[in-house]
Amino acid sequence: MNTLGKLLTLTTFGESHGPAIGGVLDGFPSGITVDTEYVRECMQRRRPGQSTVTTGRQEKDEVEFLSGLLDGVSTGTPIAFIIRNTDQHSSDYDELKDLFRPSHADYAWEQRYGIRDWRGGGRSSARVTAPICVAGALAILAFRKLVPSLEITAFTSQIGPYSTNPENDMDYTTAMAESNVVRCPDGQLATKMEGYIKDLRKEQDSTGGCVTCIVRGLPAGIGNPVFDKLEASLAKAMLGINAAKGFEYGDGFASALQRGSEHNDAFRMENGQIGTATNHSGGIQGGISNGQPVRFRVAFKPTPTIGKEQQTVTRDGKETVMAAKGRHDPCVVPRAVPVVESLTALVLLDQYLSSK
Amino acid sequence: MNTLGKLLTLTTFGESHGPAIGGVLDGFPSGITVDTEYVRECMQRRRPGQSTVTTGRQEKDEVEFLSGLLDGVSTGTPIAFIIRNTDQHSSDYDELKDLFRPSHADYAWEQRYGIRDWRGGGRSSARVTAPICVAGALAILAFRKLVPSLEITAFTSQIGPYSTNPENDMDYTTAMAESNVVRCPDGQLATKMEGYIKDLRKEQDSTGGCVTCIVRGLPAGIGNPVFDKLEASLAKAMLGINAAKGFEYGDGFASALQRGSEHNDAFRMENGQIGTATNHSGGIQGGISNGQPVRFRVAFKPTPTIGKEQQTVTRDGKETVMAAKGRHDPCVVPRAVPVVESLTALVLLDQYLSSK
Amino acid sequence: MNTLGKLLTLTTFGESHGPAIGGVLDGFPSGITVDTEYVRECMQRRRPGQSTVTTGRQEKDEVEFLSGLLDGVSTGTPIAFIIRNTDQHSSDYDELKDLFRPSHADYAWEQRYGIRDWRGGGRSSARVTAPICVAGALAILAFRKLVPSLEITAFTSQIGPYSTNPENDMDYTTAMAESNVVRCPDGQLATKMEGYIKDLRKEQDSTGGCVTCIVRGLPAGIGNPVFDKLEASLAKAMLGINAAKGFEYGDGFASALQRGSEHNDAFRMENGQIGTATNHSGGIQGGISNGQPVRFRVAFKPTPTIGKEQQTVTRDGKETVMAAKGRHDPCVVPRAVPVVESLTALVLLDQYLSSK
Amino acid sequence: MNTLGKLLTLTTFGESHGPAIGGVLDGFPSGITVDTEYVRECMQRRRPGQSTVTTGRQEKDEVEFLSGLLDGVSTGTPIAFIIRNTDQHSSDYDELKDLFRPSHADYAWEQRYGIRDWRGGGRSSARVTAPICVAGALAILAFRKLVPSLEITAFTSQIGPYSTNPENDMDYTTAMAESNVVRCPDGQLATKMEGYIKDLRKEQDSTGGCVTCIVRGLPAGIGNPVFDKLEASLAKAMLGINAAKGFEYGDGFASALQRGSEHNDAFRMENGQIGTATNHSGGIQGGISNGQPVRFRVAFKPTPTIGKEQQTVTRDGKETVMAAKGRHDPCVVPRAVPVVESLTALVLLDQYLSSK
Repeated sequence: MNTLGKLLTLTTFGESHGPAIGGVLDGFPSGITVDTEYVRECMQRRRPGQSTVTTGRQEKDEVEFLSGLLDGVSTGTPIAFIIRNTDQHSSDYDELKDLFRPSHADYAWEQRYGIRDWRGGGRSSARVTAPICVAGALAILAFRKLVPSLEITAFTSQIGPYSTNPENDMDYTTAMAESNVVRCPDGQLATKMEGYIKDLRKEQDSTGGCVTCIVRGLPAGIGNPVFDKLEASLAKAMLGINAAKGFEYGDGFASALQRGSEHNDAFRMENGQIGTATNHSGGIQGGISNGQPVRFRVAFKPTPTIGKEQQTVTRDGKETVMAAKGRHDPCVVPRAVPVVESLTALVLLDQYLSSK
Repeated sequence: MNTLGKLLTLTTFGESHGPAIGGVLDGFPSGITVDTEYVRECMQRRRPGQSTVTTGRQEKDEVEFLSGLLDGVSTGTPIAFIIRNTDQHSSDYDELKDLFRPSHADYAWEQRYGIRDWRGGGRSSARVTAPICVAGALAILAFRKLVPSLEITAFTSQIGPYSTNPENDMDYTTAMAESNVVRCPDGQLATKMEGYIKDLRKEQDSTGGCVTCIVRGLPAGIGNPVFDKLEASLAKAMLGINAAKGFEYGDGFASALQRGSEHNDAFRMENGQIGTATNHSGGIQGGISNGQPVRFRVAFKPTPTIGKEQQTVTRDGKETVMAAKGRHDPCVVPRAVPVVESLTALVLLDQYLSSK
Repeated sequence: MNTLGKLLTLTTFGESHGPAIGGVLDGFPSGITVDTEYVRECMQRRRPGQSTVTTGRQEKDEVEFLSGLLDGVSTGTPIAFIIRNTDQHSSDYDELKDLFRPSHADYAWEQRYGIRDWRGGGRSSARVTAPICVAGALAILAFRKLVPSLEITAFTSQIGPYSTNPENDMDYTTAMAESNVVRCPDGQLATKMEGYIKDLRKEQDSTGGCVTCIVRGLPAGIGNPVFDKLEASLAKAMLGINAAKGFEYGDGFASALQRGSEHNDAFRMENGQIGTATNHSGGIQGGISNGQPVRFRVAFKPTPTIGKEQQTVTRDGKETVMAAKGRHDPCVVPRAVPVVESLTALVLLDQYLSSK
Repeated sequence: MNTLGKLLTLTTFGESHGPAIGGVLDGFPSGITVDTEYVRECMQRRRPGQSTVTTGRQEKDEVEFLSGLLDGVSTGTPIAFIIRNTDQHSSDYDELKDLFRPSHADYAWEQRYGIRDWRGGGRSSARVTAPICVAGALAILAFRKLVPSLEITAFTSQIGPYSTNPENDMDYTTAMAESNVVRCPDGQLATKMEGYIKDLRKEQDSTGGCVTCIVRGLPAGIGNPVFDKLEASLAKAMLGINAAKGFEYGDGFASALQRGSEHNDAFRMENGQIGTATNHSGGIQGGISNGQPVRFRVAFKPTPTIGKEQQTVTRDGKETVMAAKGRHDPCVVPRAVPVVESLTALVLLDQYLSSK
């Protein structure tokens, strides 16, 4: 339930207000030098409190490695790591103990387990994505040695009414995305998004958005048939991110409108290599990479925690109203960008190891 | 790679032009009476050659059960079944032996395995969904005993430019969908879709579309956290269907445009039960069902096989042109409807068994 | 439950008196030429009715391949195969419908599933090992290409009071074992074993025994740590064989008597390679092969089905007596020899593929 | 590789001289009150340094729970825990950096991974069994609520030449085993074993032995067919323990000598319940429990680390001699007793959860 992958497995654990969160990455190749400063930076990217558009919470998110490394080199045994929970304001959540927050996991989880850790969302908190970023950074370091050509770039492609044009997807770089707080590679659009989020914060409201991810340099022939298709594994991983509501790859839902004659990617020779004239497929055909860039998009709903008053019910079935206190993001999308990149790296490394 | 599920596992096998296709369903509850006529009907629904809008191929698709049943009752041991391949015209595919068809799995699979069964798409043929329908029918029969309230309804919600209105989703029934060949529950729209497909057939072209699925009567508390979320498992299963390009649940990609105050589903009391005033969430919160109807949509690309001439390359790297011969669907969407229902039943039964 | 392995998975199905038994082998390497005559021979080796010391039943055991092969070469997709059940005498078992046979699975399985296929033992019949032999033959064919040095030799090392001397284990060959009906590589001992079994048959009784297996030519470095150790995976596979009661590798239970100074295998140089002076370890250290021959032994209980009268109870709890009719082996050990070899090949190929 | 189980999974991590060892227990039932003092006691039982017959090393083994508990009650989310490594004398191992210790994992692991953590055996150290004891204690606590009748008793049944009589197995209790340092429930034998180990310590040598485990109160109907048989899952878990060389259940290897008429367990009525007159089967038939006590035995080789001088080779292929320094057990068997109990509890709980 809390494990991703087959040959390379990531098992995560932890609640937002328990002693620590963390993960165990098993099946990781031996002989990879782990640049802990790089891992720390990857962690920091998803951290809240980075700007005025995300939550004011200050998570220090210091990662401690417990196993699997010898003098900074992976040994092939499980790499375990923890991140202590330090900046907890559990009292902010006291009133949620006997209340189900609308569109949160509270009610469904209590039906499943008969008990729930109500402090800060417990295991359903977005904080559980921090260990994913640690593991993702390790996967990226492994690829730097195994497939140096591989490059994963995710960015904010939509926030509320503001969207990038998919036709420009291939022009965007990580540097462009990282140049602003909303992680949108189009600077002008980024300014509008930022303003939109600030306005929503004032209104005690929130917004949804989308993240687009581009993978360059993945060799052809990576993936698996039928039930473990590359796109299916990516979809499963992405839908596991908090607030994710949809996944599409290549032309995605727009394909429903297209004709075969416009959607099909004609094969052609490019410098002696087989390539395609277009990439409506998004780099995957029949579950296996075809050597073209992999391209997909993930939709996120608005943060369910809002300051506005909402109708809800108590655990003992009384209707009531609530308005969230505490510190909350009006938009999770910018912080989801590194999570999308991390899960992409983990899924690709697992599929790569099983496709060799 | 060819196995779906955890406690309830379906392993499928078979190529379109090999001796047979089939599956092994393991972990199926004992004591379920298997109505083989019902299973046969479910199989027939996905069969091509049913109407003028789908392929003219005649697949007999007779399913033979090999194990796991005693006097028509499941015994808890694996239920294996096969469907012989009979109406094969392998010679139709002779010229594809040394050619990569655009937007088919041919090239990617050959890169993966160094060899490929070129006859009719081999394992990447849509024919591999037939065993899924057999297993799905069994899962539905199990639910009839275990959770009689459960009802799964999928239908064609888009073909090319013609779409149903998502606001009507909850009004549609299986009977309405099955009343026409495109499986669209809106009769007027169905007529337009049918005309559109017929026109494309004449133009030797194809179209994409969408299938929407509604699950009523799923109890709250079914699902799992973090990496095996109900929506993630559904997404993985759906993206495994041939030609699937996207998955969204609840308000899906439209959520990206919404504010928290409009997306959140307020809890309220309904006849002494906790329910929600709206269902933007699509019946799942934090990976676990909340008792509201589960609602999701799957996008399909246009059939890649078209009669129009296309650019492509040969296995030895020469550019050439091809135009598909043989019998092909201009639109796979109507036939995907029972596949979506079957995979839904399989995913839900697996999650149900592990959530008890 | 009915699947063995991780990267290479074998899922088997079938009851002794259902329409067919069979299996699906997934994750099998592509490009392996499958010599079906060789597979047939491997199947025949475990077949009953081969001699006067085993059951008189005539199983034709013709294997039909349904998928995964193109012109006799593996394509990387699942290889499914079935063996029809033909020589069934279900009426022999009629009286067992409402009776629990002593030391058979009848009672335990009925407690588990509430229903059981009573005809010939159903899924708990030794007949379910036939698909294992088909898959094992395929694994051996794969190794002939991937690791040509690998050689797996199993033989009968004990039947009742007659045992080979473990010190001679390394001198025995497959040819020696196959030269007599009990598959004991020591000819004189074989004659005694044969006589012993014939006497027991007359007495309507049965006997237990042991199979020893030697693997030569496995490279060092194959296996996995902690919970998927090579020896642990072998143990699990062997204990899955009908009637298996024990597994030991290297010096096994005799190690309990030894001192470290006599058990330890000193490392030494052999023609420029690191080797060991002795092989008490049985070729595995810490779960991973060390390049020395792998050596293990499996214990089997006497066939529970005997003609002698036994006390038992009926399904409705009445004490009664029974004496088995039908055709039964007084000793399963000779027929277990190819099953042990097959499972060894499957476990090693799976571990090999995940250790690369 | 480092994960045990299917529905209930234990993933362990850690090297003997790294920062910490630990585990993540996922799929654990919610609503179980965790008595941390009980868990601590279970941990302490496997701890070295408890007596003169085991190693003089002082492991504090304080377990810290990081997740999955709310006010001491399990919530259904992963329970992660760590044990810091504190009493490390890494310098004791300096000379092992470039040397392969005979019958240790050193050489095999270096062939597998190209690198190895040479400090104290790294991940192949017996210290990795500590997290198993923590998880096992949790599984026992779960059973106290789910199946209060269940009782797991393991004890030392052999050390070198001193063995208990299997016919007395059912008379032994945990209290009897815990009354002496070798954990042998026969007091007189225990004294002899203790003396034997002390003598070996003086001789700088070591000895093997056996642990027997009895499970009372397991209901009939727990287990799975064919490849996940209860005995097969137990065998796999036990062979994963450091130094384990064999596993047998019921009459085990002695069954090879028996006739069917003496081995078979006749069914009979006992107070209106179906039972068996004998228990040669060891409580399992066809992979599934039959309601009788489960009984099995595990063989352990002598500790490979001995003070006596031994032949070995260096990493660069030079023959040399070595004599172990540091603190080592002359016999691991007494400390293996709680590990066997813990793995038994984990395997049974996993099978129980999947058999319901």
